Amino acid sequence: MSSVAEIGLIGLGTMGGNLALNIAEHGFQIAVYNRTTEKTGQFIEKAGDLAEKLVPTETLEDFVAAIKQPRAVILMVPAGEAVDAQIEALRPLLDSGDLIIDAGNANYHDTNRRAAEAAEKGPRFMGIGVSGGEEGARFGPSIMGGGARDAWDQVGHILEAISAKHDSEPCAAYLGEAGAGHLVKTVHNGIEYADMQMIAEVYGVMRDGFGLSAAEIGGVLEKWNGGILQSYLIEISGKVAKTADPETGRPMLDIILDKAGQKGTGRWTAIEALMLGTPASAIEAAVAARNMSARLDERKAGEVEFGVAPTEMDREAVTIDALEAALVAGKIICYAQGFGLILEAARQYGWAMPLPRIARIWRNGCIIRSAMLNDMSSALADDAERNLMLAPFFSEKLKETEASLRQVVAQAALHGLPVPALSAALSYFDIMRTSRSTANMLQGQRDFFGAHGFERTDKAGSGFHGPWAMG
Amino acid sequence: MSSVAEIGLIGLGTMGGNLALNIAEHGFQIAVYNRTTEKTGQFIEKAGDLAEKLVPTETLEDFVAAIKQPRAVILMVPAGEAVDAQIEALRPLLDSGDLIIDAGNANYHDTNRRAAEAAEKGPRFMGIGVSGGEEGARFGPSIMGGGARDAWDQVGHILEAISAKHDSEPCAAYLGEAGAGHLVKTVHNGIEYADMQMIAEVYGVMRDGFGLSAAEIGGVLEKWNGGILQSYLIEISGKVAKTADPETGRPMLDIILDKAGQKGTGRWTAIEALMLGTPASAIEAAVAARNMSARLDERKAGEVEFGVAPTEMDREAVTIDALEAALVAGKIICYAQGFGLILEAARQYGWAMPLPRIARIWRNGCIIRSAMLNDMSSALADDAERNLMLAPFFSEKLKETEASLRQVVAQAALHGLPVPALSAALSYFDIMRTSRSTANMLQGQRDFFGAHGFERTDKAGSGFHGPWAMG
Repeated sequence: MSSVAEIGLIGLGTMGGNLALNIAEHGFQIAVYNRTTEKTGQFIEKAGDLAEKLVPTETLEDFVAAIKQPRAVILMVPAGEAVDAQIEALRPLLDSGDLIIDAGNANYHDTNRRAAEAAEKGPRFMGIGVSGGEEGARFGPSIMGGGARDAWDQVGHILEAISAKHDSEPCAAYLGEAGAGHLVKTVHNGIEYADMQMIAEVYGVMRDGFGLSAAEIGGVLEKWNGGILQSYLIEISGKVAKTADPETGRPMLDIILDKAGQKGTGRWTAIEALMLGTPASAIEAAVAARNMSARLDERKAGEVEFGVAPTEMDREAVTIDALEAALVAGKIICYAQGFGLILEAARQYGWAMPLPRIARIWRNGCIIRSAMLNDMSSALADDAERNLMLAPFFSEKLKETEASLRQVVAQAALHGLPVPALSAALSYFDIMRTSRSTANMLQGQRDFFGAHGFERTDKAGSGFHGPWAMG
Repeated sequence: MSSVAEIGLIGLGTMGGNLALNIAEHGFQIAVYNRTTEKTGQFIEKAGDLAEKLVPTETLEDFVAAIKQPRAVILMVPAGEAVDAQIEALRPLLDSGDLIIDAGNANYHDTNRRAAEAAEKGPRFMGIGVSGGEEGARFGPSIMGGGARDAWDQVGHILEAISAKHDSEPCAAYLGEAGAGHLVKTVHNGIEYADMQMIAEVYGVMRDGFGLSAAEIGGVLEKWNGGILQSYLIEISGKVAKTADPETGRPMLDIILDKAGQKGTGRWTAIEALMLGTPASAIEAAVAARNMSARLDERKAGEVEFGVAPTEMDREAVTIDALEAALVAGKIICYAQGFGLILEAARQYGWAMPLPRIARIWRNGCIIRSAMLNDMSSALADDAERNLMLAPFFSEKLKETEASLRQVVAQAALHGLPVPALSAALSYFDIMRTSRSTANMLQGQRDFFGAHGFERTDKAGSGFHGPWAMG
């Protein structure tokens, strides 16, 4: 077999298959391989005109032989052991100058480990985060690259070509060494969790507080999508709300059971925030809310014990406009937390992870794409070290919307409508805008029972102790 | 040297020294060893009458020789590598039937690993959580034991003797295999974080919302300590608030800088909750609040940008009694989360971790000791699988206090007073008491962009998809 392919891809599941078609459509000859050969055949059959750019192979040896040197191989296999197994199988067939690219949803700690192993044993290794779901993979995802810079230089033109575009700028970039790309993808997903949760919270206020129908709520979301909240998630939430179940004619939202699943990246983000010691409370609240939702039997027992909450709200206290404003404020704060997390990771790991560039490649292709990310990229280009809340554009927006966020959280609290992510966002705002928090009480307690020491407000130094009388 | 000691202890820091004195005082001959011999000498000098029960040693060999067989050795060295190093140094000197007990604040994953290593290489190994700070170590801590049952049987009588007592019942118990004891200790600390944070939050409402002085707040806390909130943490918070700085005469609380430190166990609890998929949102909020407090420069910049919040509150809307009630509700919910976490860990790891017993050994000696833990032990003895919120005693209390928690969260939100842990507790309550949450929106979104599938409200089965129109 002659080496004709510019790149290869292993794993023809929905994501992998779509990515291969996307690469082919951009004119790159691509070798494909799947563990079950049957799937490869079906894939080629369905590929239509693009089949001429695809080089199907039945063995790993043929697959490798079909790729021009230095070879680049994209893995799109399930995250975890399957990736390690595939790397082990490829290693003896590849040269040390070849390149393996893990495009799955890897935990970035695994990517770090694989990068270290690759540096020792070869071939070269990259981990790239690919966001955008099935549609994104096929027609243009956002691509967050990590690994050796020279590896990116080898394949960057292909990844940029297949990525989504924002004003013709590719939504694909090299973000730093080793696991940098997968870490940014993880935080992307954590932000996605919080974004989704906050939408679900205002949906709940409209549904249970205002008594609006799913279709009416869909109309509200559709309207919001024409304003500052314009985003893929608001758009699809509106579509979801407006869709009827063909089977029963009822709104889909009333048919879908309220037990949320998760695949782990939101959890990883929360864990990473905890490890780095950076607050990501809105994201954590969103992950916790999914875990609560999953406990349906416990919730049912809770409803029996405490009765159905009297959630009906005074429409004077909270308007639809106030909900929109609260969502704007919550969104700004959740992104401030997400970018703060990446900034802290960049500091602690010594990775580049340029924040303005990250905001730019999130403007299209990925699940959290939104109009606001454009403003964020400008704000971060202006000063990437500053808390996003303090960038003039966003601090103005927060000043405009703060009162609404307060009102929504307060009224929801009074009426039994849970808004955990919005509440967490408000608490974050109120702590991060005060020079005098209540943590002095914590430090007093800690020094009392554990002699942990504290700093003083009136002089420099640390390790001061109080004159506590024990008995 | 003749083998006279019933047990040995390595590491004569404050905690280790106090634990050794506690053991000696209960009549057990104990061999002691410290890496720097000088410290051992100083320790014996200060021990007074108890010196006759202490066997100081200058080498590890002498230390081991001084202990009766089968030997039991308590390690009280810094958590982490020092523990592994000490075990490695001891292994060649001990027999396989001897026992090493790590009494430090180990991450329970490390304890699991060490237990597995011990099973392979010997000697036997236990990990015990010891809570109560310096005072507890000296006069009676709460002891949470994990490891092989026969190892506990060997030393349980000593650990029970030195532990705190509640109505003469020892606050020490065997809780399960391997890392079970250290995991329970970790969750204890996580609950401690939330308990402390919620006290700090109501302190903030009194300070900034009501304009009370530290001494006045101390008086309120002192009064609360005579009621349902009676606990060590309320007691010491009151004392902290009432204490004046000898140097300036000002209240200590006004002198202590509001940057909270942490040693990691609260973080571990939050991470564990995330790993187990169980909601511990009040604990997570408490950890996040510490991380926020540490960013003082960022907070100062926030105050410059957004101005000082106009926190003064209407005393009609929130009374001191309402704050007490909110704290009661918050506390019940945070314990429901903590016990829920332990229950989930017991299920997933197959460890015993008997919840009523855990509540009983937390009633004295440890930092979170409180009157309410007695009621919790009864409620859990009645049904350990049930969410603590649903136990009759606590559901009644929640019904009595729920309105106050709502009012406090709402008014705090309106007035810029951050109450992240209380808010998280309220959101948990409101999600866990509804059979119809808003997670159906999340599932709709997830199915729309990722074809993740959902369950339906109207029939059994899973993996249903919506008829989403893409374009």
